[in-house]
Amino acid sequence: MKKLINSPETVLAESLDGFAAAHADILVLGEERKFVRRKTLKPGKAALISGGGSGHEPLHAGFVGFGMLDAACPGQVFTSPTPDQMIAALAEVDTGGGALFIVKNYEGDRMNFDMAAELAGSEVLTVITDDDVAVETSTYSIGRRGVAGTMIVEKVVGAAAEAGMPLADLKVLGDRVNARTRSMGVALSSCTVPAAGTPTFTLGENEMEMGVGIHGEPGRRRVALEPAGQIAEEMIAAIAGDLGARGDALLLVNGFGGTPLMELYLMFNAAKAEAEKHGYRVARALVGNYVTSLEMAGCSLTLSLLDDETAGFWDAPVHTAGLRWGM
Amino acid sequence: MKKLINSPETVLAESLDGFAAAHADILVLGEERKFVRRKTLKPGKAALISGGGSGHEPLHAGFVGFGMLDAACPGQVFTSPTPDQMIAALAEVDTGGGALFIVKNYEGDRMNFDMAAELAGSEVLTVITDDDVAVETSTYSIGRRGVAGTMIVEKVVGAAAEAGMPLADLKVLGDRVNARTRSMGVALSSCTVPAAGTPTFTLGENEMEMGVGIHGEPGRRRVALEPAGQIAEEMIAAIAGDLGARGDALLLVNGFGGTPLMELYLMFNAAKAEAEKHGYRVARALVGNYVTSLEMAGCSLTLSLLDDETAGFWDAPVHTAGLRWGM
Repeated sequence: MKKLINSPETVLAESLDGFAAAHADILVLGEERKFVRRKTLKPGKAALISGGGSGHEPLHAGFVGFGMLDAACPGQVFTSPTPDQMIAALAEVDTGGGALFIVKNYEGDRMNFDMAAELAGSEVLTVITDDDVAVETSTYSIGRRGVAGTMIVEKVVGAAAEAGMPLADLKVLGDRVNARTRSMGVALSSCTVPAAGTPTFTLGENEMEMGVGIHGEPGRRRVALEPAGQIAEEMIAAIAGDLGARGDALLLVNGFGGTPLMELYLMFNAAKAEAEKHGYRVARALVGNYVTSLEMAGCSLTLSLLDDETAGFWDAPVHTAGLRWGM
Repeated sequence: MKKLINSPETVLAESLDGFAAAHADILVLGEERKFVRRKTLKPGKAALISGGGSGHEPLHAGFVGFGMLDAACPGQVFTSPTPDQMIAALAEVDTGGGALFIVKNYEGDRMNFDMAAELAGSEVLTVITDDDVAVETSTYSIGRRGVAGTMIVEKVVGAAAEAGMPLADLKVLGDRVNARTRSMGVALSSCTVPAAGTPTFTLGENEMEMGVGIHGEPGRRRVALEPAGQIAEEMIAAIAGDLGARGDALLLVNGFGGTPLMELYLMFNAAKAEAEKHGYRVARALVGNYVTSLEMAGCSLTLSLLDDETAGFWDAPVHTAGLRWGM
């Protein structure tokens, strides 16, 4: 295992310390590093809290800040945070408007966020994201996995919360965005969890995992590497087939961490053409590493249908470590 | 070679097409893809033009836009652009204020940018960046290499140009920022140039290249992988020793493309502590993949001394694909 670390045991703590120091204008690290929260809270606003296993950076802590999350609870790499983390975050960021949990659909995450919601004194609602069309159930999930579409839910709902939308409506909006968002991924290499020390899976010299999950979970099939155009064709067909509806969409090309930007833009070029063939108009675009799997090579494609309301929330100002515009 | 491409011959063209489509609000792709330029030019402003081999994205095309570059000329991967590219860019973006070329110190780039400056009808001055303290001369350069510090020069001088600073003063400012900026890199793995098809160099299971260049050029020595803290200690000592002066500084932790954000923030944590030991105050921070080497694993550290003027230009609004704040 070749990593820029001091020891597998201290990776998360040291990384969070660096993250908090680099973004001290936006956020603060909670006690015992249980959560990262916005530096400046807005009294009465419904609080948005997310979290999950680490290793997907900038998701989720990188999306804490104005216009997006109020707090994020980082678990160990690819491991759910524990309920006490969410409870501690809630205690600091619920300023009277209640809280919305945004949770990717994995068993550990759901269980721990549910437990926190039950034990907390706050009013809590939850949006579960499950945008991955690759497989119907997977290693850590019953039902579809929550992947890169999660950040779109966080952005849209975050802007709505900032604009003063009450908790119950945020829940409805979050569910609606999730239902109109579909993703699929492909891996060209595995990643290595620091505590494990060896790659999560292995691929042959010329193989790829079509439909991979963001923890390296198996996808639909392991096949010979194909040209980018063919990969985009299969992924967009799967997404469009599942989404059903057509119209204006946000196209997100999300790198898993080990693929150069040059290839991600090439994939955007291919995916945009495929999306247009299926009747989508690519009204918004985002290309980069946003929901990663450590240093895994590959990417996911996401289409999220937009209407005037959600497009407006997407365009609204945001100021986080991982996403920033309009301010 | 495992890459998300269609063929090595079309990587650059397809990637540029995707890039221009994804950022159509900011920039346009020039004829024959010779350059990328700002969509909206400001008449009379001194034009900033950079460029170089591709494979370092977001540098340089990702820094075209308000507050930074007016145009960037992309060569093939790790290959200088040709003079006709810079001449074509000049013809479109020089609106009467002359042009400043910002050129990384490599023989091919210097020769081609010099030739363009001679042949062009415009008034052209040039800033050469050479911030890499690792080695005194290298594979493609006589004298030090220009690496991640180049983006700091582009940001500071870009903000000054936006504020109306005339060409001659921009040249002085650019030279000053370059002289107060020092970098050093470390690689844990090589990258693979698409046209070559095999890794540029090879490292053993437990080796790293200390002082690596952004094209995989040899550094100071190839040694056994060390803990992050020790790596940061050596790099910051080399940078500080060379820089001499102390004071407020920008600390840039720049990923080479294949290292997860989690490790980059951990390196920031270590580098900040080392910089403080040497008497620097880390007044500004930037962590991420900005001057990459395709999918190379590793990172560089950069310290850039700030004064009130340069800090102000660093903080000024910028709106590019790769860097965006204040608007």
